[in-house]
Amino acid sequence: MIPAADPARPTVGVIGGMGPAATWAFAEAVLAATPAASEQDHLRLVVDADPAIPDRNAAMAGDGPSPAPTLAAKGAALLEAGADLVCMPCVTAHAFADELRAAVGAAWVDAVEASADAVRAAAPDARRVGLIATTSTHRAGHVPAALARRGLAVVPAEADEHAAWMDLIYAVKAGRHGEGERAAARAWAARSVAAGAEVLLAACTEVPLLLQDGDADVPVVSATEALAAAVVARAGARAGARNDARP
Amino acid sequence: MIPAADPARPTVGVIGGMGPAATWAFAEAVLAATPAASEQDHLRLVVDADPAIPDRNAAMAGDGPSPAPTLAAKGAALLEAGADLVCMPCVTAHAFADELRAAVGAAWVDAVEASADAVRAAAPDARRVGLIATTSTHRAGHVPAALARRGLAVVPAEADEHAAWMDLIYAVKAGRHGEGERAAARAWAARSVAAGAEVLLAACTEVPLLLQDGDADVPVVSATEALAAAVVARAGARAGARNDARP
Repeated sequence: MIPAADPARPTVGVIGGMGPAATWAFAEAVLAATPAASEQDHLRLVVDADPAIPDRNAAMAGDGPSPAPTLAAKGAALLEAGADLVCMPCVTAHAFADELRAAVGAAWVDAVEASADAVRAAAPDARRVGLIATTSTHRAGHVPAALARRGLAVVPAEADEHAAWMDLIYAVKAGRHGEGERAAARAWAARSVAAGAEVLLAACTEVPLLLQDGDADVPVVSATEALAAAVVARAGARAGARNDARP
Repeated sequence: MIPAADPARPTVGVIGGMGPAATWAFAEAVLAATPAASEQDHLRLVVDADPAIPDRNAAMAGDGPSPAPTLAAKGAALLEAGADLVCMPCVTAHAFADELRAAVGAAWVDAVEASADAVRAAAPDARRVGLIATTSTHRAGHVPAALARRGLAVVPAEADEHAAWMDLIYAVKAGRHGEGERAAARAWAARSVAAGAEVLLAACTEVPLLLQDGDADVPVVSATEALAAAVVARAGARAGARNDARP
């Protein structure tokens, strides 16, 4: 247990480090999504940003160990450390999250479900989504399946488009997300819109560092912001339940 | 213990939440200070961002409880969670850190000492420092004392200057650090330079969100970046020691 200064306040456990920059962008998105007038109004976050978590893309390609046992162990440890909710700002890693979900139970806040809900909310009449993600996320199918449950199909992309996004995502992981990378991201996003996308889902937590809403002719939904909003909503409900339960 | 994916890699424990935005700015400064070509090269951070830590400025004014026991308990818990180093990106809170230093021992990385070293390095011949800090930091004297040990005196400031910086710092804590706040910060920094400051120390971790090096006619040293650089240097030394010790 890491002692909380205020035990009545919800603690959000974050399994981070995938990648390092995306973790802190997510933490800032939680801040931005929190209605707060002063420092003391914010949620408590306990973040394990571990960049040595086995590479999800390598594991999916059969070139490395699965991150699943590590993720489950971290989730359980965050609950023991005092987390009321547990989340993981990495969409690709959700393909390895079954064991983690089982370990944290009702405390789990799912980034893929939150993202699919946000896409539907941003484009209520859309049927075709441009999915900006790692090739592993495309291959794993967990994001297309969540979108399909909401009546949304993924616009097919060519192999060179997948390769271009992977190059950009790995650039962000290495700390490069300047104007050159952002211009490339806008160009690839425009191609997806030309191919029929009515809404874009930036479904890798690195992508919002390159492409934001307003950078394309259709809405751009950020998985990072969608997860942050879901966490704040769940934590708010949790805080209410806790306050109601107190004498 | 929160399990590490790579037990040989140093884990940095961070006592955060003071304020919330400053914590993530510090985490990003650690990323920026780390020589890394890929995600896997980064340090592991375990961050407890707890916005309910008793207010340091209220405590200093006698209007609230001391944060010292909470900070010491968190430091001890971060060591138990697996941290090899412990730091706290809040300069004001260092006035309450004696118990925390005792709790974490050799794992401690001190933001005040790192900042004073960075001021000396940025302005080797300077004798007068403009100290941008909370009124509590001015009053506590721990930062002026660290500067004095390096031959640096703090340029006196008027009461209205202290009040203006406090207003700006609390604006950042509430999430406001836009162009209006940044313009005000530049104007107050210019007044400190006019009063004789040869170097400015942004000694509150909120201030770098308002004022960076290049925003004044003298060097601006960021306590956030100074602590990040010290942590990376200590972690690098620690990683080397661990690697040497392995068979």
